[in-house]
Amino acid sequence: MAGLFITLEGIDGCGKSTQADRLVRALCQTGSEVIALHEPGGTRISEKIRALLLEPANGEMADECELLLYEASRAQLVREVIEPALGRGAAVVCDRFYDSTYAYQHGGRGLDETLVATCNALGSCGLVPTCTLVLDLDPAIALARATAGGADRLEREGLQFQERVRDAYLRLAEREPRRVELIDASGTPDEVYDRLVAALADLLPAPLRSEVD
Amino acid sequence: MAGLFITLEGIDGCGKSTQADRLVRALCQTGSEVIALHEPGGTRISEKIRALLLEPANGEMADECELLLYEASRAQLVREVIEPALGRGAAVVCDRFYDSTYAYQHGGRGLDETLVATCNALGSCGLVPTCTLVLDLDPAIALARATAGGADRLEREGLQFQERVRDAYLRLAEREPRRVELIDASGTPDEVYDRLVAALADLLPAPLRSEVD
Repeated sequence: MAGLFITLEGIDGCGKSTQADRLVRALCQTGSEVIALHEPGGTRISEKIRALLLEPANGEMADECELLLYEASRAQLVREVIEPALGRGAAVVCDRFYDSTYAYQHGGRGLDETLVATCNALGSCGLVPTCTLVLDLDPAIALARATAGGADRLEREGLQFQERVRDAYLRLAEREPRRVELIDASGTPDEVYDRLVAALADLLPAPLRSEVD
Repeated sequence: MAGLFITLEGIDGCGKSTQADRLVRALCQTGSEVIALHEPGGTRISEKIRALLLEPANGEMADECELLLYEASRAQLVREVIEPALGRGAAVVCDRFYDSTYAYQHGGRGLDETLVATCNALGSCGLVPTCTLVLDLDPAIALARATAGGADRLEREGLQFQERVRDAYLRLAEREPRRVELIDASGTPDEVYDRLVAALADLLPAPLRSEVD
């Protein structure tokens, strides 16, 4: 499991963060060093950038500015946390990484694909996840979940936006089948977790399901 | 003077901001709309990014993060302020623009030149200054001026850093002689301003020297 870098992706409300937490707890029980991260954020500087990005009052933010702020936050996280952790042989589980930028900024906002790809290469400092799990869910169900406790700026974009983001994730899974795996995120958290562990079977040292519950 | 976009560049302490102020005052007296800007900053969001960049406590900032934050601040300034102003036919005078990123991040910090150029194209949203004036001064003199009132994070980098930045500006002037003009920044502010106005003679509507003093 040395240097394992797993990212979880999906539209807001797909259950990604819940599943990331469960995966992290299970990995911890194998005795390995495990680093749990979320994007944007994860370092002191990245959290400050996150606050700028998610503040509803910043509605005048230009698309290009938003894109570059996500990449700035990511570059700090990669250099300060992820690269050193992978270097020590740790497992890193990241709730969102550069595929979110592809899905949201290209798919959702319509920024040029080459431009987003160039920025992603820069913000990630060339780092590619070992495995990326996309939790796929009907956008109407996901949006209802995501906005149940109040909406942040992204979530207020509405259903059509989420549908474009989902479509981008589906294209990504088609395009990079070796790295990106689609997980059906409908059903109970237990059902989704079983699918997630099955998808990671080749990478993980032991059956994780029993270690968690 | 419709849509005139003038940028002032140079190492810290070269006298750029003083000269930018004089130029702006003179342009205002011609009756045109004049927008005076400085980078990073100039919009509500860009000023928040500026605060992150210039905070001495953020010493752990990765080079790539710094680069991307500058570009994010710039993209917001271009989309929110500069493009609309040029569209109205205003004159925009900007104290630093993307050549600073070339000089500081590539020249100073050694980030890859192609990478910086790619980011600059993105952060500027493709906008190119009408004319760029580089105020050129011996780095030892400039550094003494710049640090007289206390040093921010960039200024504490020291003399060798400033020398690399200056060399990058000199290369830039050689490479883009039609856009980038070197101005000798030694001597009194009056002397430097006279050189600056002479360099802009083709672009400006009337002799500006007499309108200021």
